[in-house]
Formats: sequence, structure tokens, C-alpha cells
Amino acid sequence: MSTDGLSRRRFFGLAGAGTAGVLAAGAAGGVIGRATAEEPAAGAAAAATDAVPFTGAHQAGIVTPAQDRLHFVAFDVITDDRAELVEVLQAWTAAARRMTAGQDAGEVGAVDGGQYDVPDDTGEALGLPASGLTLTVGFGPTLFETTEGVDRFGLAARRPEPLTELPGFPGDAIDPAISGGDLCVQACANDPQVAVHAVRNLVRLGAGVVSVRWSQLGFGRTSSTSSAQATPRNLFGFKDGTDNLKAEAPKALDQFVWVADGDPGADWLAGGSYVVTRRIRMRIEPWDTSTLAEQEATIGRTKKAGAPLGQRGEFDPVDFTTQVDGEFAVPQTSHVFLAHPTNSGTAILRRGYSFVDGSDGLGRLDAGLFFIAYQRDPGTGFVQVQKNLRLDAMNEYIQHTSSAVFACPPGVTGSDDWWGRALFS
Amino acid sequence: MSTDGLSRRRFFGLAGAGTAGVLAAGAAGGVIGRATAEEPAAGAAAAATDAVPFTGAHQAGIVTPAQDRLHFVAFDVITDDRAELVEVLQAWTAAARRMTAGQDAGEVGAVDGGQYDVPDDTGEALGLPASGLTLTVGFGPTLFETTEGVDRFGLAARRPEPLTELPGFPGDAIDPAISGGDLCVQACANDPQVAVHAVRNLVRLGAGVVSVRWSQLGFGRTSSTSSAQATPRNLFGFKDGTDNLKAEAPKALDQFVWVADGDPGADWLAGGSYVVTRRIRMRIEPWDTSTLAEQEATIGRTKKAGAPLGQRGEFDPVDFTTQVDGEFAVPQTSHVFLAHPTNSGTAILRRGYSFVDGSDGLGRLDAGLFFIAYQRDPGTGFVQVQKNLRLDAMNEYIQHTSSAVFACPPGVTGSDDWWGRALFS
Repeated sequence: MSTDGLSRRRFFGLAGAGTAGVLAAGAAGGVIGRATAEEPAAGAAAAATDAVPFTGAHQAGIVTPAQDRLHFVAFDVITDDRAELVEVLQAWTAAARRMTAGQDAGEVGAVDGGQYDVPDDTGEALGLPASGLTLTVGFGPTLFETTEGVDRFGLAARRPEPLTELPGFPGDAIDPAISGGDLCVQACANDPQVAVHAVRNLVRLGAGVVSVRWSQLGFGRTSSTSSAQATPRNLFGFKDGTDNLKAEAPKALDQFVWVADGDPGADWLAGGSYVVTRRIRMRIEPWDTSTLAEQEATIGRTKKAGAPLGQRGEFDPVDFTTQVDGEFAVPQTSHVFLAHPTNSGTAILRRGYSFVDGSDGLGRLDAGLFFIAYQRDPGTGFVQVQKNLRLDAMNEYIQHTSSAVFACPPGVTGSDDWWGRALFS
Repeated sequence: MSTDGLSRRRFFGLAGAGTAGVLAAGAAGGVIGRATAEEPAAGAAAAATDAVPFTGAHQAGIVTPAQDRLHFVAFDVITDDRAELVEVLQAWTAAARRMTAGQDAGEVGAVDGGQYDVPDDTGEALGLPASGLTLTVGFGPTLFETTEGVDRFGLAARRPEPLTELPGFPGDAIDPAISGGDLCVQACANDPQVAVHAVRNLVRLGAGVVSVRWSQLGFGRTSSTSSAQATPRNLFGFKDGTDNLKAEAPKALDQFVWVADGDPGADWLAGGSYVVTRRIRMRIEPWDTSTLAEQEATIGRTKKAGAPLGQRGEFDPVDFTTQVDGEFAVPQTSHVFLAHPTNSGTAILRRGYSFVDGSDGLGRLDAGLFFIAYQRDPGTGFVQVQKNLRLDAMNEYIQHTSSAVFACPPGVTGSDDWWGRALFS
């Protein structure tokens, strides 16, 4: 694989100054503009085309302000050879460094030479800017030990105890073919072509060692992960993620998102996090024939403003004691009531995306939310929240059809660091 | 259905001046900015958030500069009642007028009233701009006569002779479940949430009369339809659509795209066009292991610059007499050679989109091109081109998995006009 390819932009003679500088900037997870790459200013507004620094204490793509588009992919490792797997993780890291900086994964091939080589980049992102691309890697329970109990890579003893398949929940309709996986990569960008290009080139680099198990595209972020972002709407038409954990609250992130020294697996996972993904099919057609009152009582917020019921503005505090006409304004079966930290006793960083995967052959849109959440421990994160949603009125309108959990190592730091080095060393 | 809803933007107190004016502007298919809505200037750059005029001699969404995102949906009509069908077409037209201008499809429901009504808009595009939304309707052969020969709506005698199911082609693997349809709507926008919202609200308005047969999302346009647009790249990594028919060549459009007086069905279809859609699966993994030379010989252009082989620049003329080392530079089995008007003897307006629908369960990305082409007659348009591609070297890397054809009526003009009025009157 060639490692000396030009910037996608410089190759085409467009302004590329500062591209390399992005790699050197260290603000983990922050978005910085090219012009200020050498001295990132906290809080500076970033353009959707800018690069997000790849290196840092934490992986980018977790508290990075949520980009608009997603391509999430889970892999099966199809070799038992640890060295081959390490080689892919190293090649992936090198390609991720390049692609997140707006470069190609490797040389497409020179005009006057290299025609008889297979290109080291597939080419469909040539000429496109970095577009806020982040690539976030995770390791599934089956990487450490297969479901048959085989320790293929000598990692069984390194599995942190919280990294275990999620329990079943009432109403689940989990399809194993789109669940689980030994590895995952979350690609987020503000241009879907850039996200798809990144996943495809990692797939290409992993040929013979990993195989795509399942993948999911998402087109609209359904949560803010920064208080600088406007709250988006999900496919129920409601604002989603108003009270999400945000990048601007680092103490809450330390408490609920980042694995800390002393936690299980901290010898390689400190500074990392666990990601839970759930493909949640929304029953769009019955929802669209329900009244506004039913919809608002199901969610616990108003549809237009996103205000907690009984309040006026989106960011008015959720107050479960407010009564209207002698009834609690926020019903005790509403999603907000049951999911809120006050009642679930915990918090998770949501980072999901809407999807529409065509229609289902029965005249219905195959649409919903690809739920993604980061947490310090799945047991006290997603599992605890989900258990509390047993009586959620929203359950009538949704169904979980896939499930996965991965441990995401801390960020890559030095120029010779690679995804998973601490785990494999 | 409420018809007096506010602009999505005015409702939220954002700048909405000129929104209504867009409806009055008459430049068919052109994109105009809000500030210049009353006097559209040819060639003025349009913002991706602007509205495209809904009314005009031709439907928007055909020669309109191709937006970045697609949601295409085909419907079965599930009633035999002509009046019910007409009512849906009228309701769709009213909603399309509103949504393409950046408004909601109808009232979401007032804050202090209407809670016990079903909202007339699903809400997920509240606060989003028009985003260049176009909605383009088409009528399939089975609307005129079912495959069993039943004339449900008294339209059999109005079917133009060219509107007939496409013939089979060598290598086709057509899945009937994602092919055909009585009606279609092509929604294009620069924000996928806006395109998805529009389709979903049309589905909602048609409940009980039409049912979604299949739908397809696309994330990246693969053709330019205006010489003001940069040529995009398809998932083979090549520039696509360099020599497409363009909005700036109206004589060619008259010859190859628009149905004219004297053509079959001109009594209701003059000023309209036929759309052919083909879901073309690309065999991404074998393509990605082929050499640059193989890829370029397959396409007939260079990968980086998009130049015809033997030339230097993308827009250098395709010259099939150019030789390099005694061989024709553009191979006679290349896609460009066989598809070019010089050799196919015809031209079509391509307007396709890339798709990635996850993976296929066999470790491969389920990805490709959702091909869309407009023409004056499918027989002398797509069918003639496709027949000429029998020996196309690209066939090794693609497979057509769906097929559909629809007649798209001319544009809606006056304020009481509706989609298909001339056909149903």
C-alpha cells in the first residue's frame, strides 16, 4: 500500500493549505477549521467541510458534535491469525489518519504509471473535502472469545467484564444477521459520499481478514452532542436529544461515558467507552394516524416547540411534579418520564441517526432510528435505561430489530500508535 | 386537510420573506433564490437551501440541476374508484405546492387546539428550509390497464403506445417486488430529511387509496443536468455524466426529452417525458481488486481527470479515432464507446443516484447506482441505449435488479391545476 499519496484537494489544485497541520492538532474530538488548524480556538464555529482531528486522548466521533450522516459497519474476523488481524488494524489506522484529514486512503494510481496496480483508493471521494469525517473503532465480545468459547487471538483474559452480549428485552425482535460483530467502525461525516468512501476503503484494506457482517446507513442525526447544535427532529417529528449528555459537560462525561482507571479492562480501555447500537424500526403509518395529543403524551414533550409538557420552551426544565387540570403534565408512561436521568438513575450519550431502508413489501416504509449510545458501562448505561422503558407508551410504535455492543479503545496518540495497540501489546 | 398552514420557517420566526413569491415565479425547472424570486436571473447561483418553483410548462425535477439526495417511491393503486384516485392526486398536488416552497404539508396542530386531530404534517421537516425540493409524478403502464387486462379507471384508451413494460435484457436479474408500479413520485432535495418528509406525507395523504410498492433512497447524484454543476463521481470512483444532456441545451432536450405535439398521447402528455428507473447493483469488491488499467479500459475514461482515453481533460471531445500505440485509445467494449450518442444513435437525460443499502449477508456491500433517465420515448431512448450495451465490458461488474417505466405529465400551471388533470379530464 502506498503511503505517500497527495491530499485529495492538493491533487486537484484546490486550496489545501493546512491539511497536514490538522493531523498535528491535538484537541480531542473538537472540530477545527483548516485556517486555524495550528491553533484551534475552543468554541470556534466549524464549517461542515472541515477536518476533525483524528488523534487525541479519546477517539473522535463520540463527543464530536454529531455530523449529519452515518455509515456504521460491523465485521466478522475470518482469520484465526493474530498477526494478520494486527496488520489490518495498523493499515486501518494509517488510512483513517489520511481520510479524516481529507486525503485519499492511498494512491489511486499515477497518470503515467501504476496502471497495472490495483488502486489504493477507490476514488469516489476525490475532490471532496474532509467533511467532518470521524472513524471510531470498537471491539465486540466475540473478538475476545467466540460464542463457542474459542479464544482465537489470545484475548479472552483481556475481555472487560462489562463487554458481554446484551440481555433480551420484552418486545425485542432481534435479527442475528444484523446484530453483533467482532469489530465495528462508525463513520460519521457531513457528506454521505465521504462516510461511504471511508467504510468501503476499510473493507477493501481488510479483504481476506475481515468480512462485512452488517452495515447501516443513517441520513439525519437525531441527537445533539454539543450545546452549540440545534436539536434535530427524529422520524416521529419530535425534537430528540434535548437533554442529551453534551461535550460541554466534561464532568458528566467522566461520570457516564469514559472508562476510567480502576474500571474493568482499564489497562487498555481507560479513556475509551462502550457503544451500544440498536436498529429501532418505527411503525410510521400507525404513528401518522394518531392524534397530536396521543403523540405528545407518548413522548412527554410538545411536538412543535419540544417543550416538556406543562412548560413553554424546549430547554425549560423537565419537572415531573407539574400538574395540569389535576393530572401530571408529563405522563408516567411517557418516554421522557421513563428515560430521564431523574427516573432511570443514569445517563448515556446518544448519537443516533434516522434511516429509511426503502419499504418492507407490505406497503410500509422500512424506517426508524439507528440508535447509538456511548457509556462507561453498558450494564449501568443502556441496559439500565432500557429496563426502565418496559412500560414506555412508545413501545406501541417501535420495535428493536438489531443489537450490538462494542468496547471502543481510547484515542490514537503518537504517529506510530494504532487502533488497539494497548490491547494487542 | 388544513390548507392555511404557515411557512415552516415563518412559524419558527426565521427569515421567510419571499417564500410565497416562489410559487408565482414561472421559470420551469430553474432554481431561484428567495431574494430574486420575482425576477429569476438565468444562471444565477442558487443556494442549496433555496426553493425550486413547482409550477411551469415542464415538471421540476427533470432538468432542474440535480440535487444531492433522492427518495423515489412507486405506488400500487389499491382502489378501483376513479374519484378516490383523483382526490389523492389533487391532495398530492396541493401538498407538493406547499412542501416544495418550504412549508409543511398541512397543519401540525395548534398549541392551544387541535390536539385531538391527526396532524396534517408529520413534523420532521419543521424548521428546515425548502432545500431545493422537487416532486415529480409519473404514471405507470398498469395504471392504464392491469397486467390481467383490467381497465380500472377508464384510462386504457389514453395509454400512449410507448408506455409499456421494458423488454428483458441479457444479464438482468429483475426482482418484481421492487419493480413497476401504478404511480411514482421522485423526490429530490439537498437535505435527505426534506426528501423523506415529502414522500412520507404523500404516503400519508394517499392512505387507503395507494400503497407503497417499493422505494429507494439515493445519497449522491451521479450526473450533472446543468453545465453549471461539477461532474460527480459514481461508486466506481469515476466521474459520471460528463456528456449528459444539460438544461442549457434546450434544442437537444426538445429532440430527446420532451414529448411534443404529434407524439403518442400528446393530448395529455405533451411537455411531459418518460422516466426509466433501474436499480443497478455494482459488484464493488471485484471492482476494487481490479487494476487501474482494467477500470479505465472498462469505462473508457481516465479515473482521476475523467478525460476520454487518449485525451487530457474531462471535457475534451470523445474521439473514437484516436489511437495510442496502434490501438484505439477508447476500447470498443468500453462503456463510453457503446453508450455514447455517436454509437448508440440517441441520447437520454440521466439523473441517477448512488445507493448503499447496507450489506447482502455474504460480506458484500449492497451498493450501486439507482439509474434514472428521462426521454421522449423509452423505445428510442433507454431501450436503444441498453441494447447497444450488450457487449459493454462494465457488465462484468454490474447487475440490474429492478426496472420501471412511467409517463410523467407536463408541469402544473395555474393555481387550480393538479397532477394528471389533462389525463383524467
